[in-house]
Amino acid sequence: MTQRQDDKPGNKQKPDILGTEIVAQSRLFKIEQLELKFSNGERRTYERMRGSGRGAVMIIACPDPENFYLVREYCAGTHDYQLGFPKGLIDPGEDIIAAANRELKEEIGFGAHRFVQLKSLALAPGYFNATMHIVLAFDLYAESLIGDEPEPLELVSWPRAEAEALLQQVDFTEARSVAALLLAQHYLEANPDVFKQTAGTC
Amino acid sequence: MTQRQDDKPGNKQKPDILGTEIVAQSRLFKIEQLELKFSNGERRTYERMRGSGRGAVMIIACPDPENFYLVREYCAGTHDYQLGFPKGLIDPGEDIIAAANRELKEEIGFGAHRFVQLKSLALAPGYFNATMHIVLAFDLYAESLIGDEPEPLELVSWPRAEAEALLQQVDFTEARSVAALLLAQHYLEANPDVFKQTAGTC
Repeated sequence: MTQRQDDKPGNKQKPDILGTEIVAQSRLFKIEQLELKFSNGERRTYERMRGSGRGAVMIIACPDPENFYLVREYCAGTHDYQLGFPKGLIDPGEDIIAAANRELKEEIGFGAHRFVQLKSLALAPGYFNATMHIVLAFDLYAESLIGDEPEPLELVSWPRAEAEALLQQVDFTEARSVAALLLAQHYLEANPDVFKQTAGTC
Repeated sequence: MTQRQDDKPGNKQKPDILGTEIVAQSRLFKIEQLELKFSNGERRTYERMRGSGRGAVMIIACPDPENFYLVREYCAGTHDYQLGFPKGLIDPGEDIIAAANRELKEEIGFGAHRFVQLKSLALAPGYFNATMHIVLAFDLYAESLIGDEPEPLELVSWPRAEAEALLQQVDFTEARSVAALLLAQHYLEANPDVFKQTAGTC
């Protein structure tokens, strides 16, 4: 056991991939089987989901220092409506900020002049290679783009001071939205002057 | 647009599920196709992953007020080693606390006399119906159980005061571990006396 702050993850010897095979696929999902040999000689068969490799964005849009925007959207996995931050896959050729601005326009009808990247989160790295980039958005302006949603998303403006109440909401449960909320609060508390800056300074 | 703290998620009319079909499956994964009709009449085909329905646990084990335990484990999805909190699926017939205690014994060689449940997180509710219960563990005692890992997990004791450095770690990226870290810090800051309590009081 070690106790340290400057952990060096690079010194672990990854298992060898002896073989891979696509064992199931559908329109959206592709499941890959891996034959692995660990450095201690142990062999195991794993399964993982093959992603698009393009990543996704999640945006905490701040219309002013006191509030941020959420959307309520139908989720097929849980067959219910969930509250969370606007998000979506990065399109081919897009960078993170362009994708964030497009998703904002599609999902909440605003663009932003200024973005701050917080942290990139993995979904469930044991099974997926999916990365979501968490981005703050400031200096909003009204502009809509047509998305592919079957119905308009419900837009909810939430007071930043009521983050604790949001964590209690029964339909605010997505791990990435919870992490994004807490990361955003940390950042905004540590950088109270971010709202005074003008476009182009971040 | 609304601005409110006491959102009532229950008043959204869920789409009707017109039909379901398993379109792909492997040893671990089952992919279901849904035919949906939204309340505005729009029809769409969605895909989602069918889970075990049993849920999972993630445990922030505190050996003392100043530290908590992490494990570094091989993750096939990203083919790298990731740092995160011990976690695992709930076994059939187990409750959340029993699963948390078993996973602790399997992954870090400790049991705990006292647990506090924080929040239950969804993975990616658009595609999965997977719930992970985040649990704090106190009053640890040494006890090991044999898990199904191909190699021993690396145990890392991390100072609570260095949470910011942990967020900077390149191999600490799982959304659920990030959310759990921030939820645990919130709880422990709000409840500093939790370490003075004795087993059975929580």
